[in-house]
Amino acid sequence: MTAIRYELVAKDEATGARAGIIHTPHGSFETPIFMPVGTQASVKGVSPDELKELGAGIILSNTYHLFLRPGMELIREAGGLHAFMHWDRAILTDSGGFQVFSLGDLRKITEEGVTFRSHIDGSKKFLSPEVSMEVQMCLGSDIVMAFDECVPYPADYSYAKQSTERTQRWAERCKRVMTAENQGLFGIVQGGMYPELREWSARHLVELDFPGYAVGGLSVGEPKELMNEMLAISTSFLPEDKPRYLMGVGTPDCLVEGVARGIDMFDCVFPTRVARNGMAMTWRGRLVMKNSQFTHDHKVLEEGCGCYACRNGYTRAYIRHLVRVGEIFGLRLLSLHNLWFLQDFMRKMRASIIDGTFPKFRAEFFEQYDAHRNG
Amino acid sequence: MTAIRYELVAKDEATGARAGIIHTPHGSFETPIFMPVGTQASVKGVSPDELKELGAGIILSNTYHLFLRPGMELIREAGGLHAFMHWDRAILTDSGGFQVFSLGDLRKITEEGVTFRSHIDGSKKFLSPEVSMEVQMCLGSDIVMAFDECVPYPADYSYAKQSTERTQRWAERCKRVMTAENQGLFGIVQGGMYPELREWSARHLVELDFPGYAVGGLSVGEPKELMNEMLAISTSFLPEDKPRYLMGVGTPDCLVEGVARGIDMFDCVFPTRVARNGMAMTWRGRLVMKNSQFTHDHKVLEEGCGCYACRNGYTRAYIRHLVRVGEIFGLRLLSLHNLWFLQDFMRKMRASIIDGTFPKFRAEFFEQYDAHRNG
Repeated sequence: MTAIRYELVAKDEATGARAGIIHTPHGSFETPIFMPVGTQASVKGVSPDELKELGAGIILSNTYHLFLRPGMELIREAGGLHAFMHWDRAILTDSGGFQVFSLGDLRKITEEGVTFRSHIDGSKKFLSPEVSMEVQMCLGSDIVMAFDECVPYPADYSYAKQSTERTQRWAERCKRVMTAENQGLFGIVQGGMYPELREWSARHLVELDFPGYAVGGLSVGEPKELMNEMLAISTSFLPEDKPRYLMGVGTPDCLVEGVARGIDMFDCVFPTRVARNGMAMTWRGRLVMKNSQFTHDHKVLEEGCGCYACRNGYTRAYIRHLVRVGEIFGLRLLSLHNLWFLQDFMRKMRASIIDGTFPKFRAEFFEQYDAHRNG
Repeated sequence: MTAIRYELVAKDEATGARAGIIHTPHGSFETPIFMPVGTQASVKGVSPDELKELGAGIILSNTYHLFLRPGMELIREAGGLHAFMHWDRAILTDSGGFQVFSLGDLRKITEEGVTFRSHIDGSKKFLSPEVSMEVQMCLGSDIVMAFDECVPYPADYSYAKQSTERTQRWAERCKRVMTAENQGLFGIVQGGMYPELREWSARHLVELDFPGYAVGGLSVGEPKELMNEMLAISTSFLPEDKPRYLMGVGTPDCLVEGVARGIDMFDCVFPTRVARNGMAMTWRGRLVMKNSQFTHDHKVLEEGCGCYACRNGYTRAYIRHLVRVGEIFGLRLLSLHNLWFLQDFMRKMRASIIDGTFPKFRAEFFEQYDAHRNG
């Protein structure tokens, strides 16, 4: 049970923000960290070499998608997901639960698990705590997520309670069958938007003594204040010596607020998705590259940025041209920029925690961020 | 008039195949060479760094597309096409003639030039020898192509003659206005499928003393035997001390036959287009990656290949998965592979010319190639 180990480096006492290092069988990485998402065994548009170059120490991949295509037999043959996709640093896989629950009418939940129809060919499939663990053991991810239900928003108290209790029973079943010594299983705090359910979920999970904990069921449509409140409650019951992961969150404002509530790990398709929509993330907000204001703009995306695009002097005018005519190299430059931006953003946030200036970092970030949003 | 200089290194006496070096203001490259196509100021899916890594010394870009988008004003501001797209090796630009003639009903030809409607917004535009030269001077390409008409196939003798004579008059006008000292203007041999027109065109172009010559109007639907016959006639009248470029040709068999007829330069969208269609080029023909035969194939695309994908061990099974689920990294790996394949193909062909074994190279290539086609 020592596949995953958390090392605390510094803590901001005013907020609880933590700087640390997480050790995995495929290397260590500094936290807080943002994990790029490689849904189908590829981070969209970016090579493993490029991910390394921008400093990514861990990526996320999706069990549901890989389970359907290419399927487990092939990944087992290839020697696991690391070998299949040529990524020798850490991988976290989700449980598949989030995706199958999102299938709506195509799925049916019982205590045993979830029966669903593939969104690709309509074939009947089954996922349960046991199947999810088996699949994730086959994938060989360093961090394995427990099979849970992400309580929808809004949900009434009785549904949220029933779902959260089932998630807890499923977590116990996951723990029982996850026997791989080189993989670490994280439990997931649920509880919807109900403080007492959040507390119940966190306390009961911690009794199972996982090597790490995630907070799930947030950023599902609720107001940000409510999200931050639920997040603070959830983390307050988690042990200090284990990593904490906020699932599916990746906008800069939510990253800062997550870190301020003691979160170490984040993931989101946001940076690569907005890149494919022709947008560049910057410290002053997003640039919509198709806008005519960039037609004659021969500056780089962001002055001083160390990403491949900016470092090599690719201009806004050139990237705008590529986006406009549909050249995929434009999306690649934007993806590299956005992923670099978030890695850099987290590194700077971490440095501020270590040198004791995180509250200042947070205040200054929002000053600029809000000015942009209102301006 | 010394922007472009051809240096003969070796010649296969049996066929006339040449190994040489072409010197340009943006570096020298060995011939015979295949030029990757960057239609819209980007070779689809591939970065300039990657093009360098696979050994490309020159790329082609399209005047028609750049003329419409992003337009000349922007490229002038950026300091020319090299600076705009971050490519500091040689660039050849076509004249725009081929694309405007392809517009069919949307264009009208007069002695003065071609009036046409943009395929993007329908706006009225005009290209002529003078405008094409002006645009290509603004682009700053090392090799500039004369504005010509590619005689359609089939064409009756009287149309072919009239068109070829006009192309000659246009070549004279191009030469008059192309005054840039760091760019070399190539004349284009036309003449349709009529030997006497091919001879007439070549002889009259040579009288104008261009720094290089292209053979146009081939690979437009005619049988390969006819293409090779017209090619041989065209090159037989071209001077030995100038480079020769066969336009729009890029399948391995046509490259070998072109080299056997004294051609030094080729271009085609073929390798990147078939990559986007999920195909890998190999010495034993093309692999259609979607085919189920590759599902469990954990070998690289081609044993011994030095491309990024093969060198790093990306397997057919993984690339098939990426192509199947629509991940763009798959198309990138295939593009890199196919472009490398053609660079490597040309390097090996060149080596055979130098060591006197080109006829053997040619025979062995077709033995394997035909076996694959029939097998």
